[in-house]
Amino acid sequence: MKREELVKQIKSKESYLCIGLDTDLKKIPASLQKFEDPIFEFNKRIIDATHEYCVAYKPNIAFYEAMGSKGWDSLEKTLEYIPKEIFTIADAKRGDIGNTSGLYARAFFDNMNFGSVTVAPYMGEDSVTPFLEFKDKWVILLALTSNSGSKDFQMMKLENGQYLYQEVLEKSSKWGNASNLMYVVGATQATLLKDIRKIIPDHFLLVPGVGAQGGSLEEVSQNGMNKDCGLLVNASRSIIYASSGDDFNTKAKEEAIKLRDEMKVYLSKYL
Amino acid sequence: MKREELVKQIKSKESYLCIGLDTDLKKIPASLQKFEDPIFEFNKRIIDATHEYCVAYKPNIAFYEAMGSKGWDSLEKTLEYIPKEIFTIADAKRGDIGNTSGLYARAFFDNMNFGSVTVAPYMGEDSVTPFLEFKDKWVILLALTSNSGSKDFQMMKLENGQYLYQEVLEKSSKWGNASNLMYVVGATQATLLKDIRKIIPDHFLLVPGVGAQGGSLEEVSQNGMNKDCGLLVNASRSIIYASSGDDFNTKAKEEAIKLRDEMKVYLSKYL
Repeated sequence: MKREELVKQIKSKESYLCIGLDTDLKKIPASLQKFEDPIFEFNKRIIDATHEYCVAYKPNIAFYEAMGSKGWDSLEKTLEYIPKEIFTIADAKRGDIGNTSGLYARAFFDNMNFGSVTVAPYMGEDSVTPFLEFKDKWVILLALTSNSGSKDFQMMKLENGQYLYQEVLEKSSKWGNASNLMYVVGATQATLLKDIRKIIPDHFLLVPGVGAQGGSLEEVSQNGMNKDCGLLVNASRSIIYASSGDDFNTKAKEEAIKLRDEMKVYLSKYL
Repeated sequence: MKREELVKQIKSKESYLCIGLDTDLKKIPASLQKFEDPIFEFNKRIIDATHEYCVAYKPNIAFYEAMGSKGWDSLEKTLEYIPKEIFTIADAKRGDIGNTSGLYARAFFDNMNFGSVTVAPYMGEDSVTPFLEFKDKWVILLALTSNSGSKDFQMMKLENGQYLYQEVLEKSSKWGNASNLMYVVGATQATLLKDIRKIIPDHFLLVPGVGAQGGSLEEVSQNGMNKDCGLLVNASRSIIYASSGDDFNTKAKEEAIKLRDEMKVYLSKYL
């Protein structure tokens, strides 16, 4: 997807909501277990109920991989079902030497037609660039994550005075551009978003950690928004598991609308 | 697999060879394409020809993932076919927030019974520990990789005077122990192995980059061996694609024997 299309979608839907499809067989209603593919059935109903209020879906690949080749089938069907105008993120956190990263790129971009994939930066430039070679596809590079372990290395000070995550932003921003590269910045790090915007004013940020992990949507929006919005804020569990009963899809819709309504306010306030 | 079993195998086979199963449909002999599962057929013949000379097999997960659910089936069959006394490595380079890493662990350890999985350290402690909770399973953490991009972040100097990869070794070695945690150190970095051994004298190292990527086996062995050998040296393409013809398995066997014979010498010289 081209950047313009994504921005257009955000403006017309008045939303920068990304919904995480972290679909777990143990957490979906028992009534779905009778279907041939309960995971797909759950995703289908979530997508039907929420697609008007979000601009992106983000399946967390681990949930599908944990089910072996069956999970892979559910993922493929889910991806085909997502309306074409919606941005898709393979949350896979891949990254390997060049020829191997190229294969991961093929898996997510060619075989499955994902719009983007999350990538880990530790192995450096040649582990990232193979993903950038696909037209109108995006790399979403881990910069500053929302978990407690982000302190261990990402927040270490380098000899040059920068934190490691700042070095990741600075160096990697030259490997691609604001039309094929985004960054993961956790909502739990919202106070740092202003500093991050000094390094990468134009790039989109994928922001997990609002809701279940405790980040504030207003703080993220105020500190992180740029002239094109530049944010995709993800919510997973708080939407898809808003109810554990058969009304899971209507409850998911309510939660999505609630977040969209909040985003509408911030778009008019901070954009 | 317990550490004692791995060490015992190394001593009895006089080998610390790991064979990378980077199996690519485009590179295997045309005569195999008539089989229902050409990838598995290729792996089966490679395993039959080489299992006496190596102590580990390392399927590179990207090669299987690039083929979708079919590739996943080939991987599962391959893993079941590997003799039980041989160590297995899912070269997946995963790593995510805690609950997600737990799912990746389940995918590789429970569903597929791999002995170990490679993990990227960028997201810190809580992204690694879920993999360490499985009995007799191993994490192989990326420390210093063999690719050119290893310079970008791994070799950056921190404020405390250490390189990032040294910090990764030091900090992470406290998350597990030498019986459930190994490290990836590329053969192209062999001169640094002596320094690495000062930080982690006891841990096993998985060393890629000998052969196709130009690392020297003698240098790696001389600088990296500890009292239990402590090395798994990987070769992929130089063995499995030693011939592109129907004699690929006999040629693979010859290459494996050649490396085993070299290792035999180094085991008596440096152990």
